[in-house]
Amino acid sequence: MKVVAGVDIGGTNTKIGLVNEDGKIFKHTRFSTVACGTYEVFIDKIGSEIRNMLEIDQELGGIGIGAPNGNFFSGAVEFAPNMPFKGLLPIRDSLQKSFDCPIVLTNDANAAAVGEKLYGGAKDYNDFIVITLGTGVGSGIYCNGQLVYGHDGFAGELGHVIVFPGGRLCGCGRKGCLEPYGNERGIQQTFNELKTLYPNSSILQESAINAKVIATHAHQGDKLGIEVFKKTGEYLGFAFANFMAFLSPKAIFLYGGISHAGELLRQPLIAEMERNMLNIFQNKLEICFSELPDDDSAILGAAAMVG
Amino acid sequence: MKVVAGVDIGGTNTKIGLVNEDGKIFKHTRFSTVACGTYEVFIDKIGSEIRNMLEIDQELGGIGIGAPNGNFFSGAVEFAPNMPFKGLLPIRDSLQKSFDCPIVLTNDANAAAVGEKLYGGAKDYNDFIVITLGTGVGSGIYCNGQLVYGHDGFAGELGHVIVFPGGRLCGCGRKGCLEPYGNERGIQQTFNELKTLYPNSSILQESAINAKVIATHAHQGDKLGIEVFKKTGEYLGFAFANFMAFLSPKAIFLYGGISHAGELLRQPLIAEMERNMLNIFQNKLEICFSELPDDDSAILGAAAMVG
Repeated sequence: MKVVAGVDIGGTNTKIGLVNEDGKIFKHTRFSTVACGTYEVFIDKIGSEIRNMLEIDQELGGIGIGAPNGNFFSGAVEFAPNMPFKGLLPIRDSLQKSFDCPIVLTNDANAAAVGEKLYGGAKDYNDFIVITLGTGVGSGIYCNGQLVYGHDGFAGELGHVIVFPGGRLCGCGRKGCLEPYGNERGIQQTFNELKTLYPNSSILQESAINAKVIATHAHQGDKLGIEVFKKTGEYLGFAFANFMAFLSPKAIFLYGGISHAGELLRQPLIAEMERNMLNIFQNKLEICFSELPDDDSAILGAAAMVG
Repeated sequence: MKVVAGVDIGGTNTKIGLVNEDGKIFKHTRFSTVACGTYEVFIDKIGSEIRNMLEIDQELGGIGIGAPNGNFFSGAVEFAPNMPFKGLLPIRDSLQKSFDCPIVLTNDANAAAVGEKLYGGAKDYNDFIVITLGTGVGSGIYCNGQLVYGHDGFAGELGHVIVFPGGRLCGCGRKGCLEPYGNERGIQQTFNELKTLYPNSSILQESAINAKVIATHAHQGDKLGIEVFKKTGEYLGFAFANFMAFLSPKAIFLYGGISHAGELLRQPLIAEMERNMLNIFQNKLEICFSELPDDDSAILGAAAMVG
């Protein structure tokens, strides 16, 4: 049986899935990216995990990899601010030394967009954007039915569009990018900015506060939690109005842990987006949640790119 | 002999060219859009001008139209803030009543991009943007070698990306769009903001001050004029750094009257763009001037779209 390995590299965790010829993930694993310590250990870990997952009767037909700042053309991760390993990481070439199957690498959000197009909610859409909200804020863009790479393989860095000039410091070293308003750390910063206004919030009793904890309390009616996602939705909505003026997509899909805030995020996002939308674009752009599980979309998309 | 009429509708002037089968404009005319007074007179004027230009041995093979806020799908100009006629203008259908040849309408900046791709400096580029700097700020985008329309035909409204939130009032009614920093009126506003700092500027002796007059003095060394285009270049450069993070084009082509400021505009533009560029995109994006004459690019592109 021929299988493809889909690898979803994240700044925090790396997930691997074995995908069969029907495009179904039949085996899953994950490990901590950070805990690998060095790039060399990380590469060995990907290789050994894939080998361990394969059964005796399974032939590896290829490896598809989605990674932050991953470049389809070069096969490398280049200067990803949210990766624990710095500089230029030639992941495709490093893995190719111990695998003789085809290996394809792209941006993790591009892989998620391919997954959404082939297996998720974007099947019927030719123009759409997937925004990943996690350790970073990434994006994959489809235009005229094709994934957009740009001239150098790096198109779609929407987390690094400067939306609020002079605003929050981003991991990339610049100020006012979308990322520090929409990623895990951004949610925590918004929480810290708002918490003194809600001294009775149940969230303040928690020992470890992250987006997931805030969302859980918000879903139970906690006003501070609700306000954190309202503010986050408004930041995203303001940015999305600009994204519309650029490519006029039919839909933007939200993907990743933070999107689990659901309507608490989506409703204020849509309201702020429409408030800032150029008249010809009003009431046209759909805001959707990814229809694939968090662990699956980028794995499936990366695997599908091996072809 | 079969010819195609290319029509470049602008908020101020409308230009028409007859294009032969070799893609050459062999006859030109222009008239004032504003002076037409009403939409009906304007449509009649386009029709009569085309008919007047045709010689007895010439057969009209089609009409290609570029217009602000022009929509390829609907053939209409929809709510263009810089047009003297308001609301929805069904130009293609209006003209079709008196012409039985194929008629195609698109955004004027899209037409300029097609012209640049087929006949200008973008022949070898698959990913590029044309920015038109005139009465408005428009754009045409190529991605993967294809013109980008978006899901509704309105993609590429880069003049209406909010680059400076809370900034200058735009003709669209919102604040901080790129347009009021890069269009004719924007240049005049920048001039007015700076003029008290340069009381000895020779420009202040002029009775009518517009971008062309300011550029003429700037090229002669006038410090106020130089500063106006430096500031304008910086506004554009800041925006272009964001455009790069979106689609990573190989080049941005500047087109239209204001781009004639030349290096006075381009050098500060590049400096500010690189200062604000995400590291992976630094020193990659070419800033070029359109290689086609102002009157030709949109006419040729619009005519070429008739096919």
